[in-house]
Amino acid sequence: LISVGVIGYGYWGPNLVRNLTTTDGVRVVSIADRAPKRLELAARRYPELRCSLDAATVLDDDEIDAVVIATPISSHYALGRHALTRGKHVLLGKPLARSLEEAEELTALAGENGSVLMVDHTPVYAGAILKMRELIEAGSLGDLRCIDSVRVNRGLLQRDVDVIWDLAPHDLSILMYLFGCEPESVAVVGADPARLGRTSLAYLTFWFPDGAIAHVHVNWLSPVKLRWMLVAGSDRMVVFDDIEQSEKLRVYDAGVTVDPLSGLVDARRGDMTAPRLDTTEALATECVHFIDCIHRGAEPVTGGRAGVSVVRVLEAASRSLRQSGSRVPV
Amino acid sequence: LISVGVIGYGYWGPNLVRNLTTTDGVRVVSIADRAPKRLELAARRYPELRCSLDAATVLDDDEIDAVVIATPISSHYALGRHALTRGKHVLLGKPLARSLEEAEELTALAGENGSVLMVDHTPVYAGAILKMRELIEAGSLGDLRCIDSVRVNRGLLQRDVDVIWDLAPHDLSILMYLFGCEPESVAVVGADPARLGRTSLAYLTFWFPDGAIAHVHVNWLSPVKLRWMLVAGSDRMVVFDDIEQSEKLRVYDAGVTVDPLSGLVDARRGDMTAPRLDTTEALATECVHFIDCIHRGAEPVTGGRAGVSVVRVLEAASRSLRQSGSRVPV
Amino acid sequence: LISVGVIGYGYWGPNLVRNLTTTDGVRVVSIADRAPKRLELAARRYPELRCSLDAATVLDDDEIDAVVIATPISSHYALGRHALTRGKHVLLGKPLARSLEEAEELTALAGENGSVLMVDHTPVYAGAILKMRELIEAGSLGDLRCIDSVRVNRGLLQRDVDVIWDLAPHDLSILMYLFGCEPESVAVVGADPARLGRTSLAYLTFWFPDGAIAHVHVNWLSPVKLRWMLVAGSDRMVVFDDIEQSEKLRVYDAGVTVDPLSGLVDARRGDMTAPRLDTTEALATECVHFIDCIHRGAEPVTGGRAGVSVVRVLEAASRSLRQSGSRVPV
Amino acid sequence: LISVGVIGYGYWGPNLVRNLTTTDGVRVVSIADRAPKRLELAARRYPELRCSLDAATVLDDDEIDAVVIATPISSHYALGRHALTRGKHVLLGKPLARSLEEAEELTALAGENGSVLMVDHTPVYAGAILKMRELIEAGSLGDLRCIDSVRVNRGLLQRDVDVIWDLAPHDLSILMYLFGCEPESVAVVGADPARLGRTSLAYLTFWFPDGAIAHVHVNWLSPVKLRWMLVAGSDRMVVFDDIEQSEKLRVYDAGVTVDPLSGLVDARRGDMTAPRLDTTEALATECVHFIDCIHRGAEPVTGGRAGVSVVRVLEAASRSLRQSGSRVPV
Repeated sequence: LISVGVIGYGYWGPNLVRNLTTTDGVRVVSIADRAPKRLELAARRYPELRCSLDAATVLDDDEIDAVVIATPISSHYALGRHALTRGKHVLLGKPLARSLEEAEELTALAGENGSVLMVDHTPVYAGAILKMRELIEAGSLGDLRCIDSVRVNRGLLQRDVDVIWDLAPHDLSILMYLFGCEPESVAVVGADPARLGRTSLAYLTFWFPDGAIAHVHVNWLSPVKLRWMLVAGSDRMVVFDDIEQSEKLRVYDAGVTVDPLSGLVDARRGDMTAPRLDTTEALATECVHFIDCIHRGAEPVTGGRAGVSVVRVLEAASRSLRQSGSRVPV
Repeated sequence: LISVGVIGYGYWGPNLVRNLTTTDGVRVVSIADRAPKRLELAARRYPELRCSLDAATVLDDDEIDAVVIATPISSHYALGRHALTRGKHVLLGKPLARSLEEAEELTALAGENGSVLMVDHTPVYAGAILKMRELIEAGSLGDLRCIDSVRVNRGLLQRDVDVIWDLAPHDLSILMYLFGCEPESVAVVGADPARLGRTSLAYLTFWFPDGAIAHVHVNWLSPVKLRWMLVAGSDRMVVFDDIEQSEKLRVYDAGVTVDPLSGLVDARRGDMTAPRLDTTEALATECVHFIDCIHRGAEPVTGGRAGVSVVRVLEAASRSLRQSGSRVPV
Repeated sequence: LISVGVIGYGYWGPNLVRNLTTTDGVRVVSIADRAPKRLELAARRYPELRCSLDAATVLDDDEIDAVVIATPISSHYALGRHALTRGKHVLLGKPLARSLEEAEELTALAGENGSVLMVDHTPVYAGAILKMRELIEAGSLGDLRCIDSVRVNRGLLQRDVDVIWDLAPHDLSILMYLFGCEPESVAVVGADPARLGRTSLAYLTFWFPDGAIAHVHVNWLSPVKLRWMLVAGSDRMVVFDDIEQSEKLRVYDAGVTVDPLSGLVDARRGDMTAPRLDTTEALATECVHFIDCIHRGAEPVTGGRAGVSVVRVLEAASRSLRQSGSRVPV
Repeated sequence: LISVGVIGYGYWGPNLVRNLTTTDGVRVVSIADRAPKRLELAARRYPELRCSLDAATVLDDDEIDAVVIATPISSHYALGRHALTRGKHVLLGKPLARSLEEAEELTALAGENGSVLMVDHTPVYAGAILKMRELIEAGSLGDLRCIDSVRVNRGLLQRDVDVIWDLAPHDLSILMYLFGCEPESVAVVGADPARLGRTSLAYLTFWFPDGAIAHVHVNWLSPVKLRWMLVAGSDRMVVFDDIEQSEKLRVYDAGVTVDPLSGLVDARRGDMTAPRLDTTEALATECVHFIDCIHRGAEPVTGGRAGVSVVRVLEAASRSLRQSGSRVPV
C-alpha cells in the first residue's frame, strides 16, 4: 500500500481525495489545508483521516510515501521541492511551476532522488483523448495537419495567474500528447475586455514540425461553456466535443486533397463514426497511472519532462503576448 | 419598375435571380454567363428572360437600370467599372474588388454618376444580425467588449482567392456593422495544412477603439460546418449560432464585472432569452434595400464606403499574414 | 418527354413544380389553381406555362400525359377520378383519398386504364429512409422490434382534416415501407386541448406481425418542431433526427438480449456510425421515380396499393379514436 | 441533530448517503446492506459509520431517529412497516409499495405514530420542475392543456418490476405535482420486443380534469438517453430537456387559439426565455425538505398521500395494460 498525503482541499483537492480513496493500492492518511473551513469539510467527510492546517505535517511525515499537491500555482515550487527533498513521490497540480527554471529544478530533483514526479494534466487521461492518440498512432488520421481547440469557461477566475497560465496548460498537454513533440514557435493575442487587471481571453497559435498548426482559444468570460477540439489529418478528421453527454468523439472519413498534377481539389466526405469510449473518470485513470509508475519506477505520461515542456511553451506564450503577438520560438 | 440584368449564374447567381424575381418593383430582363451549361439552366428555369454568353449584352443594354454582378472576385472591378460608366446602378458580389485602389475608384465613379453602388454583404441583412445591431444600439449589451466569430465551411474552395478574401468579408462586414467603425489594427495567422497552394485556414484578430477586440476563424477544411459568434458587452452577452434551426440568437443576462475598490470579480448569470427573429431570407431583405436606395438616391448600409472598408481591412490582413502575423495598422 | 399539368399551387404545389421543371424527361405545360392570387404567383415565376383557374383545363388537355394533384384531401377523389378517366398518369397528394372505398376505386381505375397512379408520400424517398430500408434488408438491424416516431409541428393546421389524417400518413407510409407490410391492429388516443374543434394531437400504436410494435406521436401544437424516429432491431438500433443538419441517421451497435437459460439480460453498446446519406431532395427522387414508372409501366413504391394501405389504416385509426382508444384490427 | 440510518447501498443508496452526510442537522450513523461487497465499499468510504449486513440492526437501533430505505421495491412494505412500528421517520424509495393496500397501510401507520413518511420521488425536487410549478401557479402558462413526457433509458433494467413500475413513478409524481391532482383515467400500451419476459417499453395516457391530457413514454431499450417534457398551457408552452447541460427549461411565448366566433385559428409565436434555475442537486433539496418536515411535523410534498396516489395510478395502469390498453378509471 502506498500511503498518500494530500495538500490543498479547495476546488480540485476534493476530487483528488475522492478518487484516491477508491484507487487500489492507495491509503490516504492525511489532508492539509490552510483554510480552517475547508479542513473542517474534509474532516467531516473523512473522519478517519489526519487533518492539519500546516502542509509541513504532511510533507515531513515519514509514514507518507507520496504527496499530492492541489494548491495555487504560486506554491507549487516550494511545496514540490519540500516533498521531493524528503524523498516523496509527488503529484503536482498544473502547471508544474511558475517558471521554466523552477520546473527544471523540480524535475532534476526527482531524477536524483529516484522519485516519481507527475503533473496533474488531467484531460490527457480522458477516454476521448486516449482514443484520439490511439487513432493517430494507428495512422487512421493520416498526417496530423491542424488542431483547433476552444476552452471557454464560465466565470471560474484564478487570482494568481492569467487565463493563459490557468487554462492553456490543459490544451498544451493534450496538443503535445497528440503531436508527440513540442511546438517550434508560438504567437499569442490576448485581451482584458472586462478590465479584470489580467488577460482573461487569449488566442494562441502554435507551429509544430512539418507545417502543422494548432490554435487555442481560452476564455474566462463566456456565458456558455465550450470544450471543443477539431483534429484534422490528411485522411480523417476528428471532432471532440466534451459538452456532449455521449458521442464526445466523432471521426469523419473526410479529407481535402489536391491532385499534384492538375492542381484540382477533391473534398471527400464519407461516413462518420463515434467510437465507443472508456468512460472512466480521467482523474481515476490518472491516479492508477501514478501508483503504477511508483511501483515500476517509471516516468509518467505527464511526468516532469512533459510538465517542463508545458511551462517552456507557456513562457514563450507570455513572451509573445508582451511583444504584441509576434511569433516567438519556444 | 427597375429593369435588372444579372451577370453570373454560377453558385450564387441563381439565389439572386430567385430573390429578384419576387422583389416588388423589379423586372429581371436578362442574364449573362460565360458557361453555356449555366446559361442553359437559366434559360430553362426562366424561359422569358434574355440570355447571353457575353456580359456586354447586359452592360450595354439601355433598357437596363441596374446590374447585379455575381462573378469571381477577379472580374468585379472591370465589370463594375463598365456598368457604372454606362450609368447603371450596381449590386456587386463581395468583396468589392481585389485592391483598395480599385474599390475606391468604383466608389468614386458611383458618386460622380449618382449611381447606387451596393456590395452583396448578405449576412448583414439576416434577421439575427439586424436584431444584434438593434440590441447594441438600444444599449442592452452595455459597452461592446469582444466578438469571437467562427466560420468553418465544408469544402467550397474558391480558385482565385485564399480563405481570407473568400470568407472573412462576411465576418468583417458584420463586425463593422455591429461596432459602427473600422478596426484600428489587425494580426493574422494562416496555414495551408492540406497543401492546396493557398491559405485555407486563418485566424484574424482585430483591435477596435476603446480596447475592444474581435477574433475570426475562417476555415475551408472542416468536416463540420460552423457559423458561430459570441458578442460580449459589459452587461449582456449574445451567442449567435446560425446552424440552429430556431433560436439562432441567445441573449444572456450575464456579465463579469470587477469592483473598482476591492478588485473583487463578480460573475453574474441570469435568464437567457432567445428573441423572435425576422425569418425573411437575408438576400430578399437585401434586394428590397437595393431597390429602395435606388428610389431614394440613398447610400446602402453595405454601400461603396462599407465595401471600401472591407477591402482596406483585407489588405491589412494580407500584409500581416506576409509579416508572419505581426500586428499592423489598418 | 412526358407533358405534365399541375393542379394546386398552394403550400406544396410550388415545390412540385420546382422539382418537375428540373426533372429529366419532363415538360411542365400548365398549372391550375382556384385562387387567382396563387395563379398570379405561378404565372410570374413561370411565364411560359399556361395558367388556369379551372382544373378541367388541365384534366381535359389531350397534350398532357400526366397530372400532378396538390389540393386539399377532400378533392383528391374527384380530381384523381377525372384524370384517370381521361387516361392520364396521376401523382396524387397524400392521403390518396378520404375513404378506403374511394382509394380502392382510384387504384382499380388506374389498373384498368394501364395508368400509373402514385401517391405523394414524399418522406419515403428521403435519403435517410432509403438508407434505413437498405440496412433492414441487409439484415444489419436484426429482427425489427419496435419503432417510435415523433412528428411534432408548429402551427400548420389543416382545415378539412384532423391531425391524424394530416400528419400520420407520413409516418404510416414510412412504417409500412420499413416493415414491408401493414400493421395488424391499431389503438389511438387523441385530444383537442386548444379547443380547435378537431383532434390536434394524437398517439397511435400499431401492432405488426411477430410482436413488433410502432408508436406515432403527431401534434400540431408544439412550439418546437420535431421529426424523430427510433428504429430498434435485435442487433442494432437507428435514431433518425430530421432536424439535424448533418448526421440525420445514427446507427448504434447496441442491443438488449436475454440469455434463454439463465434469464440474464445483456445490454451491449458499441460504436455509433452515421452513414453518409444521399442528400438529394426527396421530392426530386420521387419525381424521377414517377417518370421512370411511367416509362416502364411499373407500380411505384408508393403506388395505389401503398396508398390504399395507408387509407385503410387511417380508417382503423379513426375507428379506434371513436371507441376511446381501444385496439381495433386493421 | 437527527440521527439517520440507511438501508440499501446498491445503485441509489450511495447518492443518498453522500447527500445526507452534507445536509445540515443530520448525522448518518449506520448503513445496512445484504451484499458484503456493497457493505465493504460503504465501510471504505465512511470508516466512521456502523455497517451491518442485517437491516434490523438499523431498524431496531434506539439511537436512530430516521430511516432511509433504498432497496428493491418488493422490500419497501416490510422494511417501511418495521421502521414505522419502531417510531422512526421514514424516507422510502419509489414507488412507496407494490400495492395500493400496502401503500395505504404504511401511510396510515405514519399518521398514527406521528412519524414523517416521505417517498423518494427525487425529480420533483429538481430546480427545473420547481420552476415549472412556480410558472404554473403564477398563471404564466394559462390553463394547463397537455403534457408529453419521454423517459428513455439505456440498459438499467430492474429485476423485480416492469418498466412502468420502474420509470413511470418519476413521471407520475411530476405530473401530479404540476397538475395538483390525480388523473381521472388511464390507458396503457406496452411491449416486450426484446423478449425480456416483462414489459420493457410502454406508452401511458392520462386524462386529467377539464380535458387536459398527459402522455408518458417509458423505455428501457434505447441506445440514447432522453428526458424530455413538453408542458403546454393555453398561453405559453414549456420544453424541459434534462439532457441539456444548461437551459434545461425553455419557456415559449407561444399558443394556439381559436376565435370563438369565426372559428379561425391563430398560432402565435414570440420570444423564448430560459429562466435561470436553481442548480442544487435535487436529492440535496429533498434531504433538506425531509429534515425540515421532521422538525415541523409537516407532510412532505412527496409524502404518504402523494406516494399512495402514485401507486393507485400505477395499479390502474397495470389494469389497463392487462385489458389490452383500454381506458380505465383511476
